[in-house]
Amino acid sequence: MEDIKVLGFWSSPYVHRVIWALKLKGISYEYIEVERHGKSQLLLQSNPVYNKVPVLIHGGKSIAESMVILQYIEDTWPHNPLLPQDPYERALARFWIKFGEDSTASITDLFMRPSKDEEERAIAIEKAKETLKVMEEKGLGDKKFFGGNNIGMVDIAYGLLCHWLEGLEEITGLKLIDPSQFPRLHAWTQNFKQVPLIKENLPDYEKLLVHLQWRRQQYM
Amino acid sequence: MEDIKVLGFWSSPYVHRVIWALKLKGISYEYIEVERHGKSQLLLQSNPVYNKVPVLIHGGKSIAESMVILQYIEDTWPHNPLLPQDPYERALARFWIKFGEDSTASITDLFMRPSKDEEERAIAIEKAKETLKVMEEKGLGDKKFFGGNNIGMVDIAYGLLCHWLEGLEEITGLKLIDPSQFPRLHAWTQNFKQVPLIKENLPDYEKLLVHLQWRRQQYM
Repeated sequence: MEDIKVLGFWSSPYVHRVIWALKLKGISYEYIEVERHGKSQLLLQSNPVYNKVPVLIHGGKSIAESMVILQYIEDTWPHNPLLPQDPYERALARFWIKFGEDSTASITDLFMRPSKDEEERAIAIEKAKETLKVMEEKGLGDKKFFGGNNIGMVDIAYGLLCHWLEGLEEITGLKLIDPSQFPRLHAWTQNFKQVPLIKENLPDYEKLLVHLQWRRQQYM
Repeated sequence: MEDIKVLGFWSSPYVHRVIWALKLKGISYEYIEVERHGKSQLLLQSNPVYNKVPVLIHGGKSIAESMVILQYIEDTWPHNPLLPQDPYERALARFWIKFGEDSTASITDLFMRPSKDEEERAIAIEKAKETLKVMEEKGLGDKKFFGGNNIGMVDIAYGLLCHWLEGLEEITGLKLIDPSQFPRLHAWTQNFKQVPLIKENLPDYEKLLVHLQWRRQQYM
């Protein structure tokens, strides 16, 4: 068996990206829970630049940053591909991954660091909805998954939009991916969570709610 | 000859990433200058999500986002590789590309959108220097280029740190990549610009100074 370790924290959606990719590839690994932004010597050694999870350690070599890790997993174990084989289709997938990387922080900030100014907050909500609209209309379209009939790297990258976002919506009462407003994107969140390997590898929802509530209070 | 078009704007460092990559691969293309964030119908059609340059159009198919385009170029024309072949080395390159993507905006903001509060500004300068220190010590190290003996995708991604940053330093008097403070990173900026295909494909410096000065005034 290969020597593969994942340093993670149970509630992190970024750590789950790595877990899902490895599970979808059928790669066995040892999971090591470390404190968030913590004082773990192993984490500091293996990700000295950011000192944060996830880190993949493969044969003693460490890789940090969830999307960099996913690409490494794809390069190293090309079976059950997460990216299309065609270069143009790959580029489209990478475009949507970048779109998500550039836009999801402002969406989670809406919940975690809401503006105290009501007008500012209303503008931020409108902006988030415009982002979701672009994702739905131009990214997802009429496909079941961003990857087509099966989940791929874009779906994994957007994974925090289900479960985590649902948790944030529940604790704040602000519904962003409203099924009446974003029917296809909402269906996607449900379809994604129903994929067996995803469903089996999600943090416990009730525990996540308590954790998100606690983290939210740290920022307020 | 293949049908390859680049939509660009003469002063954009992101457009130059694409130009450099194509030149390094020896790929011929038609360059089409379009207005920045402009009203070009071709730009709007080929990059409806962002309506900005650069866009690569290959055989009628459009790709946006400079780093997505670079990866497409690498996938489509694998000769003269811009990324290492070894998956772990590739992951390291991707890590540093992401590091640059996440940190260069705050560096250029220092010049383009400087804080009016002096203390805030001092903190931002310190932060920028910490970023440059990480780039130099952990990224570049004792290598000539981030890519080793030859330039690669990380060097191309960091290209705006020479020429453009020098221009910003000159018009503001704020020297960030000081040779006494960052000798290796400073040497890299000089080495990078001396690579013939880079040197031959840089915007005119005097014209760039005028343009950066003008853009800076838009934000002030």
